[in-house]
Amino acid sequence: MLSKQDIKLIKSLNQKKFRQQHGLFCVEGIKSIQEFLNSHLELHQLYATDAAFSSEYEIITATELQKISSLKSPNKALAVFKIPKNQQSASEGLILMLDDIRDPGNLGTIIRLCDWYGIKDLVCSATTVDCYNPKVVQATMGSLTRVRVSYVDLKAYLEGSNEPVFGTFMDGDTIYTQTLPQNGIVIMGNEANGISKDIEALVTKKLSIPRFGSLQATESLNVATATAIVLSEFKRADL
Amino acid sequence: MLSKQDIKLIKSLNQKKFRQQHGLFCVEGIKSIQEFLNSHLELHQLYATDAAFSSEYEIITATELQKISSLKSPNKALAVFKIPKNQQSASEGLILMLDDIRDPGNLGTIIRLCDWYGIKDLVCSATTVDCYNPKVVQATMGSLTRVRVSYVDLKAYLEGSNEPVFGTFMDGDTIYTQTLPQNGIVIMGNEANGISKDIEALVTKKLSIPRFGSLQATESLNVATATAIVLSEFKRADL
Repeated sequence: MLSKQDIKLIKSLNQKKFRQQHGLFCVEGIKSIQEFLNSHLELHQLYATDAAFSSEYEIITATELQKISSLKSPNKALAVFKIPKNQQSASEGLILMLDDIRDPGNLGTIIRLCDWYGIKDLVCSATTVDCYNPKVVQATMGSLTRVRVSYVDLKAYLEGSNEPVFGTFMDGDTIYTQTLPQNGIVIMGNEANGISKDIEALVTKKLSIPRFGSLQATESLNVATATAIVLSEFKRADL
Repeated sequence: MLSKQDIKLIKSLNQKKFRQQHGLFCVEGIKSIQEFLNSHLELHQLYATDAAFSSEYEIITATELQKISSLKSPNKALAVFKIPKNQQSASEGLILMLDDIRDPGNLGTIIRLCDWYGIKDLVCSATTVDCYNPKVVQATMGSLTRVRVSYVDLKAYLEGSNEPVFGTFMDGDTIYTQTLPQNGIVIMGNEANGISKDIEALVTKKLSIPRFGSLQATESLNVATATAIVLSEFKRADL
């Protein structure tokens, strides 16, 4: 039985302001919840209609789940986890940096790509969508438990780093023929405007993904697909 | 001034059944509409609040646009175009084949990728989401005018072809070390289930995108990002 207060708290976690205030975020669906339970993240509360979890959970009705879920078709369970403290990134290996990514689906897909390609650190501008946004959590499909996401002042971060800094631009050198190192920072820019001017000034190597289509072809790739191609290129260089 | 009949017709085009019945589909937003106007597609009707188009258009109010738009924030114009006849694919160069892709955003992103990588023919199973679905049209950002999309019986198509057939599987050979030709068919499978068994039987070369993350890392990539990596590999092989 959910109290009115529980419902109010959980629903408030749809908003970044309340997630930060309470230090909590929601995960939905049995498979995703199981991945979070198996991770270093700390469970706050788990609600389920009829699932079998090893962790203790509270049984609720489907109608109650509907009330607290942010999904159109809730999937048997909803968990509230504690937001981990902003961990210092390790600064080793390849670091992916996001300059003002706004779409939750894009961020979720990019976190999943980091997980796939073994990128441990994702460093985001403060203007990038919150990784504990329910749509982002949903899209990461558990990968959020394996990628350290931090929100920092990109300019200060880059100025304090000695690593090579890569970014993709229309006028960069084709990524397919470059020697790509296994240490460094790779920046992906905003969906509409790309990498901002003050961050561009700190890029040490401009790359581009060549377009093979006709001159009339689309001017840009979706940022998540561009990230896929860029990470693939850096990682294949290590084979 | 929009008649009730106009409104009813345009709203009905949200459904595949009515798009097929009328042979019409909608495009929204000035930039996308401009790309369709500049293409081989035939305009049926164009409505705008205050845009400047070279083609003839009917001025409507913002309230009227709201009524016919499928977007939360309509963007000044809505056009109705005629669905082109199912063109025979050219069967030259690389052909991308989709086996049961269900998500409109994924199909839209994949069409945009085809445009970027110069893939002229996209061959889809009948179960793949309709490319004239408004969400797909929106996500292609005009690329739909430059990629031939056809819906066919994949099995019959493959049995009638002599081209090499590539597909991605968990147990395929790593794509990064293969010699990839510039002619052939590349199949991408359903979001949840991958390539279906009867199509798998017709694949001549199984490929895989290696996972670089830990053993616990995500088991799969989103199909649009996987398509990005696969097309990038085929095209870079031509450099």
